[in-house]
Amino acid sequence: MTILVTNDDGYFATGIAALVEVAQKFGNVIVVSPDKPQSGMGHAITVNQPIMIEEIKNFGKIPAYKISGTPVDCVKLARDKILHTAPDLCLSGINHGNNNSINVIYSGTMSAAVEASIEDIPAIGFSLLDYSPDADFSAAQQVVEQVIEKYLKQGLLHKYLLNVNIPKLSFEKIKGHKVCRQAKSKWVEEYLERETPSGKKYYWLTGQFQNLDKGTDTDVYALENGYVSIVPVQYDLTAHHQLTDLSEVFE
Amino acid sequence: MTILVTNDDGYFATGIAALVEVAQKFGNVIVVSPDKPQSGMGHAITVNQPIMIEEIKNFGKIPAYKISGTPVDCVKLARDKILHTAPDLCLSGINHGNNNSINVIYSGTMSAAVEASIEDIPAIGFSLLDYSPDADFSAAQQVVEQVIEKYLKQGLLHKYLLNVNIPKLSFEKIKGHKVCRQAKSKWVEEYLERETPSGKKYYWLTGQFQNLDKGTDTDVYALENGYVSIVPVQYDLTAHHQLTDLSEVFE
Repeated sequence: MTILVTNDDGYFATGIAALVEVAQKFGNVIVVSPDKPQSGMGHAITVNQPIMIEEIKNFGKIPAYKISGTPVDCVKLARDKILHTAPDLCLSGINHGNNNSINVIYSGTMSAAVEASIEDIPAIGFSLLDYSPDADFSAAQQVVEQVIEKYLKQGLLHKYLLNVNIPKLSFEKIKGHKVCRQAKSKWVEEYLERETPSGKKYYWLTGQFQNLDKGTDTDVYALENGYVSIVPVQYDLTAHHQLTDLSEVFE
Repeated sequence: MTILVTNDDGYFATGIAALVEVAQKFGNVIVVSPDKPQSGMGHAITVNQPIMIEEIKNFGKIPAYKISGTPVDCVKLARDKILHTAPDLCLSGINHGNNNSINVIYSGTMSAAVEASIEDIPAIGFSLLDYSPDADFSAAQQVVEQVIEKYLKQGLLHKYLLNVNIPKLSFEKIKGHKVCRQAKSKWVEEYLERETPSGKKYYWLTGQFQNLDKGTDTDVYALENGYVSIVPVQYDLTAHHQLTDLSEVFE
């Protein structure tokens, strides 16, 4: 099988190298990854400028390309201009930092996986709860291998799009997997305000994560308790439960 | 009430001027809009560079700011650094072009509205099915006024996040409103391939929209039949219906 590996941290990130190493055990890997960090790019696509594709040698004999675009662009271009067909599986990550709860919506890693799913390509996004550029991915690699193995052997392809988050623990200390829902949460922003040498103000995004969800069936809860969180993802944003009531107002 | 108006086409777009004109009838408007086109930016946030805010005079006496960031950044900064509190309502648009069906996920216009909703700010995104920069927004303005009026008078604030798409028709020819679900659809990409003067290839995103949904209860169907489509939106990406089956595989 052909496995497309992408991410949002860029082709040079430790996390994508770790993912490629595991992915190779399951098929023919091709890497198509952004040429610069694309964290927080969500489901952005490049529409107002052209995109460059460049072959790279960072993954030894594995065919690999860097793209001057977003994670979603990587999936689209991989299919249309590099593979010229859909891959059998798309793996995104391993992200440096978590993509659980509300973070899924800002995440380039997960948006690449979502884009694959929109295009009928089975997909899994992996994230490790460690933002460090030189994070240790060895335990995460074992988790990734377990998850891919189950995904393939249990016939989950084309059925499930998965968001997998891995706690920052040794493999022995990880308690297992929890299938869970996305916790209701938000970021409370506090932009840093600074001045340029010429006195013009500028702002850096920072913020505090707020978990608004006391449920024990959420990804935040699972991760806090030492489990790998596995959330099945969908991309229909319709609030189906509101359709009837809202119809009464507008029709 | 304080009404934050934003968009993804930029502060200079005809569509945001049209929206501001209507919004003024309902409260004190403040405009915070991207300083360049941000179509297709989805839920992107600016994390790797600072953001500039600049006051502008494009909307007469209405306080207005342009931001060197994404539509989602506009909502975050408006709250944290311009208003210093949450607005009572966020209106996004009027977008030049449709944001129905799968387009909602790529749309900067709708992502701004979604971000507002994450932050507990009532929000509506408006889009006109006309990509032209000098599109005629007069019929759309009448629709926008009707929708905001119902939204406020019927107590929909804090209950519904709305994605409103308006057909390219005169107001008289618009048949009414349809509350509907997002149609299952996708874009089939065909990147244009060109060469720089020095012979390096580059690619421009283009594509064909494919509606995969034969339902008569969808936004695509409503719009094709001359109705304004109103989709209630939510941002929980959990595939709740898959949780039980998937648990059996992984636990």
